[in-house]
Amino acid sequence: MGKFVTFEGGEGSGKSTLIQNLRNYLDEHKVDYVITREPGGLKLCEDIRNILKYSTEKIGLRAELLLFSASRAQLVDDFIRPNLDAGKLVLCDRFFDSTRVYQGYAANVDDAEVMKITNFATAGLVPDLTFYLDIDPMVAFKRKGGQDKGDRIEERDLSFHYLVRDGYRAIAAKEKRFVVLDATKSPQEIVDQVIEKLRTENIIE
Amino acid sequence: MGKFVTFEGGEGSGKSTLIQNLRNYLDEHKVDYVITREPGGLKLCEDIRNILKYSTEKIGLRAELLLFSASRAQLVDDFIRPNLDAGKLVLCDRFFDSTRVYQGYAANVDDAEVMKITNFATAGLVPDLTFYLDIDPMVAFKRKGGQDKGDRIEERDLSFHYLVRDGYRAIAAKEKRFVVLDATKSPQEIVDQVIEKLRTENIIE
Repeated sequence: MGKFVTFEGGEGSGKSTLIQNLRNYLDEHKVDYVITREPGGLKLCEDIRNILKYSTEKIGLRAELLLFSASRAQLVDDFIRPNLDAGKLVLCDRFFDSTRVYQGYAANVDDAEVMKITNFATAGLVPDLTFYLDIDPMVAFKRKGGQDKGDRIEERDLSFHYLVRDGYRAIAAKEKRFVVLDATKSPQEIVDQVIEKLRTENIIE
Repeated sequence: MGKFVTFEGGEGSGKSTLIQNLRNYLDEHKVDYVITREPGGLKLCEDIRNILKYSTEKIGLRAELLLFSASRAQLVDDFIRPNLDAGKLVLCDRFFDSTRVYQGYAANVDDAEVMKITNFATAGLVPDLTFYLDIDPMVAFKRKGGQDKGDRIEERDLSFHYLVRDGYRAIAAKEKRFVVLDATKSPQEIVDQVIEKLRTENIIE
């Protein structure tokens, strides 16, 4: 049975950079892993994503959460589970914790409610480890060069990003599988911390 | 607050005929009602229906159930709930009991699991009355002229239809809102029985 590792973080947290650096390391060390992200190239998931992205009609909150969950159910059945059964390390860029935060916490939907749907969608599959890149949204914004570029972050947007961060932190506080990473550290320090953790958990050698 | 009435039944049970006869009666008696069925003309629900109908990829059981539920959530929010709030009688040709039977009972998925998803999708909305047209699947098949037309019903299909009937009966046995109608009776007898029930429940005058 393979191990399942997910990556979470808000906008500008450096998640893509971390994942790329980790892949480089895993490739160099010939680790047998696969990586995915929703929609993960599955036809059904692409179709659902298109609905979510291009709908001209306002999609209700519950319908939206159910659509994300339907997509996730298919990804679990057709990609994640078969690869875990084949003994592979499966990495996933965002998973159900994103839904718990964006469609749950930040939308004022009770986490227990979201988890009922999520547990059904994943047939109970839970990541072995979840790396969360934590950063103050204002720092992330400045780091992206937001102010230099003359961008101004809207008050409303900023408060949403703080809500997202609160949501992740609330989950991290109650889930043992969460590893909170300080996203203001250098990319090298962060990937080293991730590799170290994967080693101590015997997920990689 | 209006009343919410749903209609359920297997293939060839005469559900469309009953609904048409009831509509004729309600129209003649100037009852203020609306009627819908999934996808109910909503853009999101049509899009979801197209995925379910035309997907070239095999859709998993849980993904399918979640897609039906997403569509239902939107129909509740954008059509059923607003009309009930406006005090109207809302009729719906099939509702979540179909999912409980087709994606639940007949697919060997636990009813309590299906109801968790369903209760989330409908935000707890439950029909006031559900009319279920009960008929032996073999009798329904013969009534449609199946044998005269030289059709042969497959053993496998027949056993599925019996499973659907068992599912409906199991739900009817535990839900007080269910009214089981003998679908071998004449269309006039059936619609009369429905009208009588709507009257005694003070849903129509």
